[in-house]
This record gives sequence, structure tokens and C-alpha cells, in this order.
Amino acid sequence: MQNRKITISPSIMCADLLNLEKSVREIENAGIDTLHIDIIDSSFSPSMPLGIDTVKQLRKITNMDFDVHIMANDNEFFIQEMIDIGVEQITFHIESSVHIDRYINLIRNSGAKVGVALNPATPLSVLDYVLPQCDTVLLMLINPGFATDKAEKQISYAVKKVKDLYQTIEESGLKTRIEVDGRVSLDTIPALVEAGADILVAGSTSLFVKGNSLAENKQIMEQRIAEGISLGEAVR
Amino acid sequence: MQNRKITISPSIMCADLLNLEKSVREIENAGIDTLHIDIIDSSFSPSMPLGIDTVKQLRKITNMDFDVHIMANDNEFFIQEMIDIGVEQITFHIESSVHIDRYINLIRNSGAKVGVALNPATPLSVLDYVLPQCDTVLLMLINPGFATDKAEKQISYAVKKVKDLYQTIEESGLKTRIEVDGRVSLDTIPALVEAGADILVAGSTSLFVKGNSLAENKQIMEQRIAEGISLGEAVR
Amino acid sequence: MQNRKITISPSIMCADLLNLEKSVREIENAGIDTLHIDIIDSSFSPSMPLGIDTVKQLRKITNMDFDVHIMANDNEFFIQEMIDIGVEQITFHIESSVHIDRYINLIRNSGAKVGVALNPATPLSVLDYVLPQCDTVLLMLINPGFATDKAEKQISYAVKKVKDLYQTIEESGLKTRIEVDGRVSLDTIPALVEAGADILVAGSTSLFVKGNSLAENKQIMEQRIAEGISLGEAVR
Amino acid sequence: MQNRKITISPSIMCADLLNLEKSVREIENAGIDTLHIDIIDSSFSPSMPLGIDTVKQLRKITNMDFDVHIMANDNEFFIQEMIDIGVEQITFHIESSVHIDRYINLIRNSGAKVGVALNPATPLSVLDYVLPQCDTVLLMLINPGFATDKAEKQISYAVKKVKDLYQTIEESGLKTRIEVDGRVSLDTIPALVEAGADILVAGSTSLFVKGNSLAENKQIMEQRIAEGISLGEAVR
Amino acid sequence: MQNRKITISPSIMCADLLNLEKSVREIENAGIDTLHIDIIDSSFSPSMPLGIDTVKQLRKITNMDFDVHIMANDNEFFIQEMIDIGVEQITFHIESSVHIDRYINLIRNSGAKVGVALNPATPLSVLDYVLPQCDTVLLMLINPGFATDKAEKQISYAVKKVKDLYQTIEESGLKTRIEVDGRVSLDTIPALVEAGADILVAGSTSLFVKGNSLAENKQIMEQRIAEGISLGEAVR
Amino acid sequence: MQNRKITISPSIMCADLLNLEKSVREIENAGIDTLHIDIIDSSFSPSMPLGIDTVKQLRKITNMDFDVHIMANDNEFFIQEMIDIGVEQITFHIESSVHIDRYINLIRNSGAKVGVALNPATPLSVLDYVLPQCDTVLLMLINPGFATDKAEKQISYAVKKVKDLYQTIEESGLKTRIEVDGRVSLDTIPALVEAGADILVAGSTSLFVKGNSLAENKQIMEQRIAEGISLGEAVR
Repeated sequence: MQNRKITISPSIMCADLLNLEKSVREIENAGIDTLHIDIIDSSFSPSMPLGIDTVKQLRKITNMDFDVHIMANDNEFFIQEMIDIGVEQITFHIESSVHIDRYINLIRNSGAKVGVALNPATPLSVLDYVLPQCDTVLLMLINPGFATDKAEKQISYAVKKVKDLYQTIEESGLKTRIEVDGRVSLDTIPALVEAGADILVAGSTSLFVKGNSLAENKQIMEQRIAEGISLGEAVR
Repeated sequence: MQNRKITISPSIMCADLLNLEKSVREIENAGIDTLHIDIIDSSFSPSMPLGIDTVKQLRKITNMDFDVHIMANDNEFFIQEMIDIGVEQITFHIESSVHIDRYINLIRNSGAKVGVALNPATPLSVLDYVLPQCDTVLLMLINPGFATDKAEKQISYAVKKVKDLYQTIEESGLKTRIEVDGRVSLDTIPALVEAGADILVAGSTSLFVKGNSLAENKQIMEQRIAEGISLGEAVR
Repeated sequence: MQNRKITISPSIMCADLLNLEKSVREIENAGIDTLHIDIIDSSFSPSMPLGIDTVKQLRKITNMDFDVHIMANDNEFFIQEMIDIGVEQITFHIESSVHIDRYINLIRNSGAKVGVALNPATPLSVLDYVLPQCDTVLLMLINPGFATDKAEKQISYAVKKVKDLYQTIEESGLKTRIEVDGRVSLDTIPALVEAGADILVAGSTSLFVKGNSLAENKQIMEQRIAEGISLGEAVR
Repeated sequence: MQNRKITISPSIMCADLLNLEKSVREIENAGIDTLHIDIIDSSFSPSMPLGIDTVKQLRKITNMDFDVHIMANDNEFFIQEMIDIGVEQITFHIESSVHIDRYINLIRNSGAKVGVALNPATPLSVLDYVLPQCDTVLLMLINPGFATDKAEKQISYAVKKVKDLYQTIEESGLKTRIEVDGRVSLDTIPALVEAGADILVAGSTSLFVKGNSLAENKQIMEQRIAEGISLGEAVR
Repeated sequence: MQNRKITISPSIMCADLLNLEKSVREIENAGIDTLHIDIIDSSFSPSMPLGIDTVKQLRKITNMDFDVHIMANDNEFFIQEMIDIGVEQITFHIESSVHIDRYINLIRNSGAKVGVALNPATPLSVLDYVLPQCDTVLLMLINPGFATDKAEKQISYAVKKVKDLYQTIEESGLKTRIEVDGRVSLDTIPALVEAGADILVAGSTSLFVKGNSLAENKQIMEQRIAEGISLGEAVR
Repeated sequence: MQNRKITISPSIMCADLLNLEKSVREIENAGIDTLHIDIIDSSFSPSMPLGIDTVKQLRKITNMDFDVHIMANDNEFFIQEMIDIGVEQITFHIESSVHIDRYINLIRNSGAKVGVALNPATPLSVLDYVLPQCDTVLLMLINPGFATDKAEKQISYAVKKVKDLYQTIEESGLKTRIEVDGRVSLDTIPALVEAGADILVAGSTSLFVKGNSLAENKQIMEQRIAEGISLGEAVR
């Protein structure tokens, strides 16, 4: 776990949706190379923040890594759309998937990285045979698609679940990365990183905290991340 | 039918999705007061162009009339979302609706105008008891949600269907407006307007024809509309 | 249309659900021979007033005619359950039925009367080939399953729809009875009966108007019905 | 309607499913050039007689016209499968279709003939804008998918519905063919042909009547058809 | 596990559905403070015993604890209905839930106790991250919604599953209560209580055994419960 | 594990679908007593190879053991159909089942053997309480329903999963048989048998390898099986 590289994956939903080109440039200029894109179908969760056509247009103007998180019932449709657009990582929810192994193969064969996402309550045992096929496991720390509901708080067992997953990955001798999504804030980053998180989905409680510039917030995030790494090294 | 006022309703899908604020200003500056917003849920049709959050943001920067066209299976969810945002007209598809009368009431009570949309093959008899409750009937002239499929052509019976609906409205003594959507082009506008169309959803084959400015295209559209009105007056 | 016999079909939902046996006796004692039973599955409409087991128990204590109105997506299941219980009329919604002709046969072969129900906005053309197979057509005058929503008012086109259906039945030389359901009140009864209604679903705005006994309300209803019959005779 | 050519379309379901090659040769040798293939998905109706792979294999051994009747909820999937196999006519049910116009185009563009099927209770008004786009309208005379249920009888309004459709086609100046399916028997053929039926789906009550050879049954069918044509000419 | 308090939760389905007020008084008079209410939507299981309106009415006449067991596909709808009515415990099935953590929060925030229910075959691993958030885990010992099917017997692994769950709870240092539902009879109570059951859903094979009064049956149940507690103490 | 009897279960899909009677005789003559029958509903997976009526016909001509593998969403329907036909083993997918315990009972009570099938990615923990009720666990080694897709390869963790399941069965003192399905080839048979597989679904890569007769391929399979048994004995 030495020389850990933690990825900041800013959520496009926190950008200025009416001036996305400008927002993307700002994110690029802050030295960030990844963009987290939430695709929700209104049926898996009662929300539909962003359209596919918007992702298509975004693809044309930037070489950032697109880290796409699909929250949908028809995974095959959305995975294929994202493959057609050409993105760097495609993550789908295991709760709405019957043919999990098939989706993994579809994504892998397209050249994109494979991610599977787990809802807060989903046990890690669903990964028993899937884990070695994945580049990333995304752990939802709030209920997916309810981010705009202020009553939604990060689950109390967030750090424990990250630790459990980290231990499973270590014991299996794998290099799977752990992505955390949902109220990943300046306050919670150190403990999450200590527990083993590799990719931080960054929203209104971290990179987009109001009052600061993106660059300023990124600097604070990096301090928190460094704290988390130190804590992690002390433990192991 | 004298002093007919034809509305141009430009499709947001033809705007620059990465610079929507700028696009909206251009449309406003061209003297257009209506914006056609397509909401597709990926299930009614395999497409999901635009997100709800984008509509929310748009609402904050413009007073244009939002002419929202929902193509979805869960009409109640999307109608309520649009009511919460505050839009001027909400149109839903009759093919995916069991409680049609209820949706009409929901929209009416919110203060928005009520529209019902019909797929190309849907007979007008579905309007038998609904027509007097509607401000607008939207006739799809291509299959909804397949606009980006180049093989999709305007239905051959477009003008006939508009005429039939116009006649029904006239015979009922109503003032329901007819909206046409799907490959409404500079070529087809005169005949559609002659047949009775009141609202023209304007896309890549009319207001957004490449090579011209919006203002130029609008001027050509208005000429075509005037031709259609003249033809209509000659007939009646 | 002479010697018309209008049926009052009191809704079990307006009875005392905690003392149904007593309620049934009161209804019987008021000289009423029919009981209207609403079965809603929570999916066709977001409501589930009554359970099937309650209907089973009711069957054991009374010989009243059970006039069952199914509002459900899985018509085959509920029709079979009602056949097993043994009821006098089974009405299902045409909007949630693919195998309409089959359901009609199932009910007919069980010995029960056949009813089909239409939502407010549903056109009468759906009856083109079904009408001769039906004993009863039930016209919903409010959206089904939303009766407890105070904002739900009787549709403005109630009388017109009853008239249209009456005319169709007369022209076909049939004896199909027209059942009306939804805010059938003391005020609206005369016009509905005049228009051709044969069966009145009676709820809180007629038989169960507070302050009067069932017998008193029944008497008032019968006066209103008589008014309606007279008006009808005057017209025809 | 002169020189009417009536097509006999024998149902593959009445063939010997364990020796299909032999059955196909027998049908060919009887001078029949069309094969009616029922595809049911177990969900539209609780039945699944034949598999797609069987149709694929059949295609390799015969040049007969494949007259495919899809009874399914996912029409797009089955239409595409039949296009890939290469069949001469594809008929789908209008009751399970939202994008009717689209399916018609898919089939048309593949080079196959277009058929739409109507359940017994479905009104002809659903054809208002579809009829001119169709080569064939298939009228179900029993409930689709329940053919093995002996209690299923041909609908009493079979002849009337064929007549109504015939009249509509004539009035529109079209050449759409009428296909009838469900207990089309030696007894009912004359009246159905008289009424306007062009294609007869032939099963256990006509071409496959036990005790006779296919050739013998075909000869009797042709006599009945001739009777029907004569009756038709007398009327018109 | 000392001073164990075992709760008897009598199923409303075994009460007199036509005289519920009287039944509730009898249960109260027998010194029982909890009422088990089964809500089934006809889709999760082919059964719909009781209506929501009946629960609403029950709420008005008694202060007993309502122990509601939802067996449905649309958990969010039914949970919200029960919250609106005001009940003491809401239990939903984990097999039909995608947003488990969300439902837990909804119930918790309403002030009711949180229960999750598991079908017989469902492994306990689904509780890995949910257990600490629950007040109660309900183990179904027959298939939910099939209680009236006489062929349904209590699962052979009932006691083992209770023991496994009890051990998990103890090892986690939690106080989660174990509820058992399905053929919980006078014969099986001792072993189930010994294994760790805290809440016994009581039906026709315990509290409602015919021939005895409720009070008599309750007394026998309490003896069986006491036996079970003694056995449990002996083991631990 | 001594005196292991490995069953070869040839897939009917590899037989000659147009001459099934002849194919069945060839299989019988090769000394094989089991027939693997895949039933797919087109919805669980986009495939529908074989119809139910074909299975009915097959039943009439052979006494071979029918080893039916249902890949469907409506398990209750297909299980009941197979019970009515009379087959020796019915296997259903646990991923599409809510009432797993109920399906097991239905099959058991019919006299057939009970099988549950797991998709490649499904963890073995779903078997925690089901395993002792099953005669067979079928492990899918490719995605079910996609066998004709050449890109589908046997999962890399096939042998590991068989080993894990074998160990679980041994530790539980059970005699459950392990069936493997999906690219079970001459090359992979030794390792799969060594790992604990008892039933081999045989298709185009084993029993139906082109160029050889069934008898020849069977002989080679038996050699590979013997190799696997020896390897297994060496390990244990």
C-alpha cells in the first residue's frame, strides 16, 4: 500500500450544467484528470440528473478520464451506450444485474476499466467470484440517486465497509481499487483513505465547497488525503 | 382560423449542450419565446437525451415558455418533477398512461398548460373524451425517441393526420392547438401549417439548419409559415 | 326504457370496516340487495382498500348480490379468486387487459355476470366488439383508486359519456346495463339516470350521507332516481 | 375482388414436431407454399410452443413462404430475430406495441411483408393510420396463445369483424389482405371467405383433420374456399 | 439472554374479519399488547388478505402495538402508508428491496421500529451491514403469502436458522430481536424460543387453536415459552 | 467420492431440431440415458431456443431422464409445465426466484429431482439454507442463454467454483450432485471432474464434436472423465 495514488473524481453534477465546457476547463486547469459521471434512469432511483447526449458532447472536448457510474435497471443498454461514446471506466450496480459476468466481459472487451457498484446495504459476499474480474469496486455511502435529499447522510458503517473490502482485496492478492461515493467530505476523507479508499468521488462537501476556488479545495483535499495515507501506514 | 399565431418551439436538443446558457441567449435574441424540452426515460424509448437537473438550472436563467414533452413510462413522476420546476406546458404520451384524466388534472391544477402526445400510429379516437380538457395535442411525426436515427423519416400521413385533428377540433368548437414534432422542415412547414398546425417543434431541419444564423433561419421559417397560412385561408 | 329498474350498489368501502357484519345487516335491512366491492391491487392505482379474505368472509354471511369491481393489473388472478368465492358480477378494467375476450369467457362460464370498466378518458370505441358480450359497462366518473383524494371531482363529461354509451347500446339493440361509479351524488343522480345509467355505485355522497340513516338516504336516492326516470321518459 | 387468390397457411404447430423435415416435405408435396409459424414468448400469453432455433433450422431446408406470427411483449427483439433469419412476412400484435410505426418500418426495410395482428376484442380503430402501411391484417378469432385450451371457441363475431375490416379496406382503396387465425374450420371457411378473408391459418380443424391425408384435406378446403368466393361474388 | 421477554404477536388474519372491533377487544382482554398485521400486494405473493383502509380504521380504536409485515414489491409505497397511519413496527422484505438502507432510514425517522424480513431460503449474509440498523429480523418459516395453502409446512431448518441468527447477533453485541412467522405452533414454540426467538407470530396453530378461548390458548403458549426459555438457559 | 458415477447430459440444442426423433434414437443407441433440455423465455436471457410443445412430444417417445434447465423469470409457470409433462429433474435459476423454498417443494412433491442453477457471478452463499433441499446444483460456466455467442468463453474461475461447492457439500455431509454447464469440453472435463463435477452438460465441444460419431465422442468423453476421477482420487 506504499506510494498510494489516490484519485479525485469530481462529480459532473456539481459543475455548472449550463456552462459545462467552462466547468470542464476549470477542472482541467486545477490539475484533475478524472470526471465522475452519474447516469441514472429514473427507475432504479427516482432521479435522472444528466442525459446521454450531454456525455457525448463532453467526450468531444476533453481527454479527461470519464469515470461513469450507471444507476439503472437496463444495464446492457447503458453499458453499450457508454462503450459507443468511449469512456475510461464503466461501473454498474450489481443489485440490478442478472448477467453480471456478461457485463464485465462487455466492458473489458471494449477497452474500458470495469467497475461494479454496491448499495450501502449490499454484502461483500456478492463479490466472491466477481472481485478478480474488476478494476474497481464502488461503494455507495449514501443511497444512490438520492444525493439531493438533504436528509441523506453518509452511512455510519462507511469506514468499516471500506476496511472489510480492503482486507478482502489484500487477502486475495488483488489490486482492485476501492471507490467511495456519497458525502465524501473534507471531514471524512482521512478515515476513508486510511481504511483503503483509492478513488474519491468529490462533490459539494469537498472539491466544490463554496467560498473557495477549485484549486484551493483541491489543495485541502490533498492535505486530508495525505493525512489518511499517513494514518494508513501507521496501522499497517 | 384568422389571425393565426404560429409558435416556433425550438428543441433544446439542437442547442449547444455544453454551453446552454449561451444557446438560450441566442434563441432569446432571435425573438423566440418558447423552448421545447424533450424528457425521455430510456424505457419508453431507448434514449435519454437530457437530465432533469439541467431543466432545473435552465429555469433559473430564463423566462421563456418551457414546452416540456415527456416520453416516459412513469408519467406521474415526471409530471410532478416538471410541476415542481415550474414550466408553462407539460405534454405526456397517452400510450403510456392509464390515468390520463388524472394527469390532466395534475397539470391543470399546477397552472401549466396541458398537452397530450400521440405516437404516429395512434388513432385520434383516443381523444374522444380528452380533447376538451387539453390546451394542446402533440402529434409525433416520427417515432418518439428515435430522432437521432437517420433512417427515421417523417410519416407519409403527417398532413392527413393534422387535417383530421384540425377538423375534429373545429367540429367540436374548441381552440385546442396542434403541435407537430419530428422532421418539421422548411420543406414541410407550409403543408403542415395549411393543414392546421399551430406549434412547430423546430430542430435541425428548420431553425437549426447549418450555415445560417438562428435569426436567418427564423426568417425563412416565418416565410414558410406565412405561405402555409395563405394556403390555409384559400382552402377555408 | 320503460319500467326501468335502477340498482343501488352501495360501496363496501363506506361501511364500518371494523364491524362489517353489522354494516351488511343494516344495508340488507334498508331493502338493498346489492353490494359493490372494490378490489384494488396497489399497482393499477396506488390504493388497496380491501382484502380478498374479507370478501371470502362476507360471502359466508349474506346472499346479497356481490358486484365486484376489480382495479388491477393481473386481471386473471383476481377474476379467478372472485369466481372461487362465488360472486354475482365481476367487472374488470379494459385498460389493463390484453386478453379481454378471454376474461369475458372466464366470467361468463362461471355463471357470474360480465362487466367491463372504463376509465374516464377511455373512448367507447374499445367496446366495438366487446359490448354484445357484456352484461354491464361500468363508467368511472373519477379516476379509479383515488376516491379518498378530496381533490378528485366527478368528470365534467360524465353525463355526455353516459348518453353516448346509452345511444350505442340502443342502436345495437342490446340490453347492456350502464353502471356509474365516482361521486354519484344526490345532486348528480337525476341527470345520470336521465342519460341512461342503470346501476349507481352509492357512497359518501348518496347512501352514506352523514346525519341520515341508510333508510332515509335510500328514500332520497329513490326520489332522485324517479326524477331522472321522468326526465328520461320526457326526452325519449 | 375478382380472381381472388386465397392462401392456405398451415400452422407448423400441427406438424410433427419431432420430424419437422418430413412434415415440411409433406406440406410442400401437397402443393402448399406457405408455412404459418407461431412465436409466443410465455409472457404475452402463457404458452411457448416453438423455439427460434427451430425456425432457423427450418429456413435452411425450404423455400416456402414463412408467415410468422409473433405473440410477444418484446416485439423489437422478435422482429429483429425474424429479420435475421429471413422470412417472408412478419406479423406482430398491436396490443403489445408502443412504437407500431417503427416496427412497420423495420419489417418493411428488411424486405418482408408487414402484418399487424389484432386480438378478438381489439377495435378496428387502432388501424386508422396504420392500415395503408400494412400488407396484411391478422384477425385473431380465438384468444392468442390459448389454442390448446379446448374450451376456447371461435368468437361469435368472427364473420362480422372480417366484414367490417373488408369494408374499411375497400373504402380506402387498399389491397391489404385479411388473415384469419383461430378455429378456421371446414365449416367456417365459406362464411369467412365470403366476408373477405384472404389468408386462412390452417390447423387441426381444416388441413390437419385426422383420418385424411394432407392432400385430401387440402382438396376439401379448396372446395369450401370456392364456395366462399361464390357467395362473396353473389353479394357484391 | 436472562429475563427474556417473549412477545406474542397475534395475526390479525386469524381474527374475525367481519367483526374486527370485537376481535381486537378480545385480544386486548387476553392481556396481549401487540397485533401482527400482514400486508400483501398480490404481486410479491399471489395473495391480498387485508386492505390498508382496514388498518387505518383499526388504528383509531386501539393503542396496541401494530407489528406490520409488508410483503410487497413497492416497499416505498407501503412503508409510507404505514408511517402515515402511525404504527409501532414496520417490517419489509429484503428480497424485493433495492434501497434497503433508505427504507430503514424512512422507518427509523418516523419513530417506528425497523424490521427486515427474510424468506426461508434467503441467507443471513444479506444482513452483513444491515443488522445493526434493525430492531427486529423476521424469519419466515413458511413461504410468505401462502399461509392458507395447507401443503405449506414449516421449513425443516427453522430452528437452525434461528440459532444461526441468534449467534450472529450475540457475536455482534447487538440486541436485535428475532421474530418468527409461519406455523409457529404449540409444538414448535419451545425449540424456537430455545434457539433464540423473541417475537412469535401467533396464528391458528397457537393462540387461535380452536376449542379454547384466547385466554386459555395464551396460557398454554406461555407455558411453552417458559419451557423454551428454560431450555435456552440450560444451554447457555 | 469413491465409485463415482459421472452423468453425461447431452444438450438437446445440439441435436437435429428438424429430426428430433432420429436424434433421440441416436443418443439412446450411444448408451446415454439423460437428455439436457434448455428452456429459455427470451426475457431472462435474449434467447428462446426450444418450445414447450416440443418437450411434450419428446416425452411421448422416450424414457430417457429429462434434465430440464429453466432459464426464465416466471419460474412458477415453467416448473408447473414441466411437472405436467413429467420430467426427472427440474432446475431453476436462483437469481430470478423470490420463493425459492416454494419452488423446491413444488418440484419435490411432483416426484422430480430438484436442481437450482447459479449464474457465473452468483456467490455460493445463496445456497446456505437451500443446499440440503437440493439434489443438484447447476453451475453455469458461461452466461446462460448466450451459448450461441462465440465470444462467450468458459469463466476462468470454473474449476475454483466447482471445488468450493464440492468442499461445501462434503463439509455438510450431503450427497448433492454438481452439474456443470457451458463449454464443458474434452479439454476441460478432467479438471472439472477432478474438482467434483458429477453431471456434465455435453454440447458441441464434447459429445457433439464434429467429425466423430456420438459413440466415438462418448468414448473419448469417458476417457477424460476417467482421467478426472483418477486426479480427484489422487488429491483426496
